[in-house]
Amino acid sequence: MNLKLKNEELGRLSVEEFISSEKNTVTVVLDNVRSLNNVGSVFRTADAFLIEAIILCGVTGTPPNKEIEKTALGATATVKWTYASTTLEAIESLRNNGYALYAVEQANQSISLKNFKTDTEKIALIFGNEVYGVEQEIVSKCDGVIEIPQFGTKHSLNISVSVGIVLWEIIKDRL
Amino acid sequence: MNLKLKNEELGRLSVEEFISSEKNTVTVVLDNVRSLNNVGSVFRTADAFLIEAIILCGVTGTPPNKEIEKTALGATATVKWTYASTTLEAIESLRNNGYALYAVEQANQSISLKNFKTDTEKIALIFGNEVYGVEQEIVSKCDGVIEIPQFGTKHSLNISVSVGIVLWEIIKDRL
Repeated sequence: MNLKLKNEELGRLSVEEFISSEKNTVTVVLDNVRSLNNVGSVFRTADAFLIEAIILCGVTGTPPNKEIEKTALGATATVKWTYASTTLEAIESLRNNGYALYAVEQANQSISLKNFKTDTEKIALIFGNEVYGVEQEIVSKCDGVIEIPQFGTKHSLNISVSVGIVLWEIIKDRL
Repeated sequence: MNLKLKNEELGRLSVEEFISSEKNTVTVVLDNVRSLNNVGSVFRTADAFLIEAIILCGVTGTPPNKEIEKTALGATATVKWTYASTTLEAIESLRNNGYALYAVEQANQSISLKNFKTDTEKIALIFGNEVYGVEQEIVSKCDGVIEIPQFGTKHSLNISVSVGIVLWEIIKDRL
């Protein structure tokens, strides 16, 4: 029989252990994300998958913020984050530091997430605004576009769900 | 260059086309999910991945509901759903209809989502309450437990993120 594990049986890290742990060299860039609920949820997912950093760009809200905490549930204290006033500035700095840049978008010549493979160790994943997505100017400067195949009536998935799916698909190969 | 696609270039289905499309024979069961925001987000994800049905159990809110619509963005009009007053009733009915039942939980002898494979065509995935998870009584009656490996400080992922990750991992093999 499968017995559910108690919280103390999960072997989760303490805040100090998290900070000193080796992280996945994946940086999440949020390009003008409007919803603080989504920002908090991204922190929580980034904590679960030992993501090295989140860069909050433009109008994206930053901690400390009560609305972000409602969904981050404390993960703003573990996951490293920085703020950049423009997404352009953030991705130029990442490129200078040897990161491969991938926008998560719906675009021509995109790579289906199902087929995405990279030998690059350091990758940055750029997720966009709830309505406008990642700005074309940013998409044009990336090394590629990753697309989550979708088959229904809606144009896109919720951004915090997209972040979860893409991070899972990329980090599971590193498990 | 990757040019972003306009909404009309995405080739999404109309509501009528969705309803008459062949679906993935995966049913999502929500066991006493409290947040209407999460319920709506699950509808939106289920629409994107052509999921056949959602069963809303116990205290889980049901459409029509303004809060659900804020995140479902119309997907309550496409994805088939039913309500069951207890999760037990829902899973007994699914079992009688030939479904393999998997709780998404953290439990001993769980199967890592990374290794989960099934030859069964009809599967039901049970996701639980934000605080209590899937009830042990329900977990005990399932054919197995799927666990999303997590490495940070938090006990679990947001439920709408978990639904996205698990549905992606299961339906992508059917793409």
